[in-house]
Amino acid sequence: MKHSLLLSSLADEAHAFETKSDAPILSRNLGMRAVKAALAAPRLAIEKVTPSVDEGRFAVKRIVGETVHVEADVFMDGHDSIAVSLLWRAADVTQWNKTRMVALGNDRWAADFPLGRMGRYLFTIEAWRDTWATMRGELMKKNEFQQNIALEITEAIEFIEQTAQHLETAHEGLKNLTLALKEASTAKQHDVLLALLLDEQTAAILSEVDHRPFLLRLDTLFPVDSERREANFSSWYELFPRSQGTTHENDHGNFDDVIARLPAIRDMGFDVLYFPPIHPIGMTYRKGRNNHPAATAEDIGSPYAIGSAEGGHDAIDSKLGTFEDFSRLLRAAEEHGLEIALDFAIQCSPDHPWLRGHPEWFLWRSDGSIRHAENPPKKYEDIINVDFYAGGINGPVAPNLWLALRDVVLFWVRQGIRIFRVDNPHTKPLSFWQWLIAEVRGKHSDVIFLSEAFTRPKVMARLAKIGYSQSYTYFIWRETKAELMQYLNELNAQPLCEFFRPHFFVNTPDINPWFLQRSGRAGFVIRAALAGLLSGLWGMYSGFELCEAAALPGKEEYLDSEKYQIKVRDWQQPGNIISEIALINRIRRANPALQTHLGLEFHNADNDQILYCSKSTANRDNVILIAINLDPFSIQESHVEAPLWKWGLSDDGELNVEDLVSGNRWTWRGKHQSVRLDPAVLPFLAWRITATSMRAN
Amino acid sequence: MKHSLLLSSLADEAHAFETKSDAPILSRNLGMRAVKAALAAPRLAIEKVTPSVDEGRFAVKRIVGETVHVEADVFMDGHDSIAVSLLWRAADVTQWNKTRMVALGNDRWAADFPLGRMGRYLFTIEAWRDTWATMRGELMKKNEFQQNIALEITEAIEFIEQTAQHLETAHEGLKNLTLALKEASTAKQHDVLLALLLDEQTAAILSEVDHRPFLLRLDTLFPVDSERREANFSSWYELFPRSQGTTHENDHGNFDDVIARLPAIRDMGFDVLYFPPIHPIGMTYRKGRNNHPAATAEDIGSPYAIGSAEGGHDAIDSKLGTFEDFSRLLRAAEEHGLEIALDFAIQCSPDHPWLRGHPEWFLWRSDGSIRHAENPPKKYEDIINVDFYAGGINGPVAPNLWLALRDVVLFWVRQGIRIFRVDNPHTKPLSFWQWLIAEVRGKHSDVIFLSEAFTRPKVMARLAKIGYSQSYTYFIWRETKAELMQYLNELNAQPLCEFFRPHFFVNTPDINPWFLQRSGRAGFVIRAALAGLLSGLWGMYSGFELCEAAALPGKEEYLDSEKYQIKVRDWQQPGNIISEIALINRIRRANPALQTHLGLEFHNADNDQILYCSKSTANRDNVILIAINLDPFSIQESHVEAPLWKWGLSDDGELNVEDLVSGNRWTWRGKHQSVRLDPAVLPFLAWRITATSMRAN
Repeated sequence: MKHSLLLSSLADEAHAFETKSDAPILSRNLGMRAVKAALAAPRLAIEKVTPSVDEGRFAVKRIVGETVHVEADVFMDGHDSIAVSLLWRAADVTQWNKTRMVALGNDRWAADFPLGRMGRYLFTIEAWRDTWATMRGELMKKNEFQQNIALEITEAIEFIEQTAQHLETAHEGLKNLTLALKEASTAKQHDVLLALLLDEQTAAILSEVDHRPFLLRLDTLFPVDSERREANFSSWYELFPRSQGTTHENDHGNFDDVIARLPAIRDMGFDVLYFPPIHPIGMTYRKGRNNHPAATAEDIGSPYAIGSAEGGHDAIDSKLGTFEDFSRLLRAAEEHGLEIALDFAIQCSPDHPWLRGHPEWFLWRSDGSIRHAENPPKKYEDIINVDFYAGGINGPVAPNLWLALRDVVLFWVRQGIRIFRVDNPHTKPLSFWQWLIAEVRGKHSDVIFLSEAFTRPKVMARLAKIGYSQSYTYFIWRETKAELMQYLNELNAQPLCEFFRPHFFVNTPDINPWFLQRSGRAGFVIRAALAGLLSGLWGMYSGFELCEAAALPGKEEYLDSEKYQIKVRDWQQPGNIISEIALINRIRRANPALQTHLGLEFHNADNDQILYCSKSTANRDNVILIAINLDPFSIQESHVEAPLWKWGLSDDGELNVEDLVSGNRWTWRGKHQSVRLDPAVLPFLAWRITATSMRAN
Repeated sequence: MKHSLLLSSLADEAHAFETKSDAPILSRNLGMRAVKAALAAPRLAIEKVTPSVDEGRFAVKRIVGETVHVEADVFMDGHDSIAVSLLWRAADVTQWNKTRMVALGNDRWAADFPLGRMGRYLFTIEAWRDTWATMRGELMKKNEFQQNIALEITEAIEFIEQTAQHLETAHEGLKNLTLALKEASTAKQHDVLLALLLDEQTAAILSEVDHRPFLLRLDTLFPVDSERREANFSSWYELFPRSQGTTHENDHGNFDDVIARLPAIRDMGFDVLYFPPIHPIGMTYRKGRNNHPAATAEDIGSPYAIGSAEGGHDAIDSKLGTFEDFSRLLRAAEEHGLEIALDFAIQCSPDHPWLRGHPEWFLWRSDGSIRHAENPPKKYEDIINVDFYAGGINGPVAPNLWLALRDVVLFWVRQGIRIFRVDNPHTKPLSFWQWLIAEVRGKHSDVIFLSEAFTRPKVMARLAKIGYSQSYTYFIWRETKAELMQYLNELNAQPLCEFFRPHFFVNTPDINPWFLQRSGRAGFVIRAALAGLLSGLWGMYSGFELCEAAALPGKEEYLDSEKYQIKVRDWQQPGNIISEIALINRIRRANPALQTHLGLEFHNADNDQILYCSKSTANRDNVILIAINLDPFSIQESHVEAPLWKWGLSDDGELNVEDLVSGNRWTWRGKHQSVRLDPAVLPFLAWRITATSMRAN
């Protein structure tokens, strides 16, 4: 930097400034607009608002009946007191509820609000300088140090009088206060005056009538989605209706066969029963068994090849039954405490009515064909996709496609369906889902969408942000203790914990996990225990309870996949794990800590084959300790540390626990415990902490 | 949930939908606006942009000449290719520079841009579907799997032809490509066609002429402040001009005395020389020695009681000299490589000209007085503050005060001052500083503001966010290894690392640190080494080099504070640490890794009294290992781990190092080293890594 040039005219400059030359006045006028804007800019700062997703761009997810705990950093220059309010309301009403936030220290403020019903809520924060709290604080402090406060008392009375004068409607309490102050003032009763000014009641009155100088309200309305309990906690069972109640592979099952299966499914403790698509299946390029490109006359095709001469997404495959049959199934399921979830797969067979009725919804190639689904070298000739931007972004065509797809969902909502598992949502526009889910949930806040996106992590997260209540996860490929801990910790941490509800499927019709292909029966129990005890949402595809694992050689796929053929099963087949699944679901139902993936904490176990953790409700009224042997082949033992410090206990404290498998109760003494888990018997244990006490030495 | 009611009309509903009753059509019309908005909504997503402060609300801070490394998550539904561009420009030009970002994996994209000059820069990001990359990728993949690609080739040629047709101005390369394709097509040269389509050159042409479908550009312009090097790296020396060159306490020093001191200050290696206020000092309520409420005729008063009949913030205390004298001092300082920093303290003595000239800038109490500064029970009767909101938020009065304060800064800028240390900024409105700094730096991008805010962490951080280049810190109270590590790690981490430049003062006229009051000489060297080797910015207040520590009993304040009296010193006093300070500053100047607080990493040392760390430049061309004994009383020894893994070396690798104290060079073998630091000799060591080699076993 060169000072020399600047310095040459130093004396002149000083003179010009002192004599108020034109130059500063000119700059003064030019800068007036900026300085007025700065004067009107917020004096207070509100930041780091929680809970929030991307600074309020997306909703945090909660369950109806819960309380939302809001915090924010709020501060102002100087040392004056400030007041902070939380404003909250359901999105469909206009009136804000207001709750004063309390200071937690270090400029952090907090307040709670309740989610009284389902649907979207909004909250925001406002803050202002609390003039009376500032004056009162100064009075108290100076009085404490026995300083002269005559002037401060005069000013306080003046402030109260001015506040009263500027009120639009008179305030009874304030009027009485003013009179009392005047009386004491006239009588020169210094002590009475001071007592009145420092009174809690006075503070309460002035808080009510405060004109709130420097009021700042955040522009951002932070959204919270309040959903029903099942969004966070449910146990899913997936089946192909056409395989139910069959005795041989050409015997097509129907909805009545599903009704007959309901008691067994319910006895295993499931509460959601989910079907792959139930619509008519196309004939053109129909796939044979094991995805064979040429189907025989007997082949029934993949239910994901939606649409035939019978109809499309708003029709039911006549082999499964009529709408009346479907309605009877829904009633029966409800009677058994089961809710039906349907698949929403936006794709068509070449025979779908939309191809003739709405050719403009598809992208036609130069040879007159439509591109079929493919992932080179794989081809799915029986499936073609609509073009979400057919006709261009603002073209006249696409809106009708989008509306038609929304109306398909609303159609099934009208049939009584409230849960949709959405097939491959990541291959459809994110903005489409954001709009569709908002449209549907705006009218029916009890509708739940599950995102079946096995794709890159950021796309999966975004699908959850834009409205999916639940998401498929990488759980199915997390096998080792390190992998499971890393993944579960990530799901429990910011930012995912606010909006991403993981659904732990142990298998799907598409995924025959490597682990289960080689693990044998114990492996199935291990995976069920991991999913069922660590996540509020878990699911299995039927056959899992029979430990089915026959695979296409070298592939993570089922041999003789049920996607292309009917599967005949003996539901009481020896070696099944039905009772273990029922046990896991029973433990889940009885323990709120297990009804979410949150509240998880891993603890020390010195054996890498033993996963050891606790799950706790937010208020700690339900705390479960869990140990799972990850090794399906061998007995594993481990020293484990009971986390006594969580209860403020010393290392030799005592915990009363209930074994959730046996129902036995006993007392643990000291933090050093050990577990021994035999996968051939039961590869997991779970204990509920029933009471704690300090050990008397 | 009750299904029953819904189910009663199920069959009717189904019928209505199938026969296209009025209801869906009505809902279709009503929803058209929302669906069109959704169709026009971004198809791509851009998020988690770095570097940024509060999602772009505030500027990140960098130094001119540096490169800014920008990253973002960018993704779209499905599997098509996307393209991402970084747009960047200086804030005062309108033309964007564009740089293609490269994919790092996991949907993360990156690009760099240079800061060519000082001032504010802006950047943002745009992205779109890359149609050609998508088509080309499919061609390559299908060709690899030897699938029939005749149709794909036809479509690719069609796409290129359509692109050419829709171009506003013809593109030579595209024209030639189209001709070549036509020729090969006519000649049915399949291989030539494919080669042309897969050619890199073709990709480059189509990237140029791409019409960028689904283009999304972020609304947010992310600001970057490009400042001069001294904003990040400088060594400050603070002195009271009136104490310079004096031989007894009534001998008032002046600017010429400061000129005489310049060589000694420069020889210690400092580059910024900072003065407390140099303005006329008020007489009313002037403070005596040691802040005594009654001054004698000899008392010179606190320079923070600004303003007298002589003038206010735009005047110089005549005892220090004239503007001409000041100008001569600035020239002399520049010749010595020293830059002068002034204090900007917005406060007045009761004698300040503003009280008479602008009574409307002050808040007058009902007894006709103005509130003096106080912090009960402490009183500062010699200082009163202006009222930033006098006249109300939108009143006519306050703007002139704000403009006058800005003009005080601009006045001193015209005198050649480019660094302002701002006194107690946290007691003035945050929006005032944001405006003032923007006004000043908008015209003079080389101006540096240092925030002297010893207050709550969030207020300190916000002052840095709104424009302060540098900030006082809690360093002065961080004494133990754990405290230092915690604090330095926090300063090195997000979010602070992007905008908060810590200035490590080892003492100030107001703070006589507890540690130094009991540590003796070695403690002064320890604190200088900590500040000088760990932070790019450090400073000391004169007397520190003489190990002055006499305190007011039981207080963290100096006895006979120089704020209220002239201090006579022997600058060559025995036991001074001038040579150690010069050594530290010499090491700083020679090593870029020490010219910032960033790039710090702590390493293992098994002794809690030995702080052991490395500092590295971003490109690792300068790496310094540092060990400091925190114990001023005893020799401390420690095993330390040389971080060989940072150079990919095995635990028995070799490092060539230079001892920066002695200049000696040698080779370390193996990661296990030990240090022994005698505080009576020199409590720190620093080594520069000069070369590395793998040990041949």
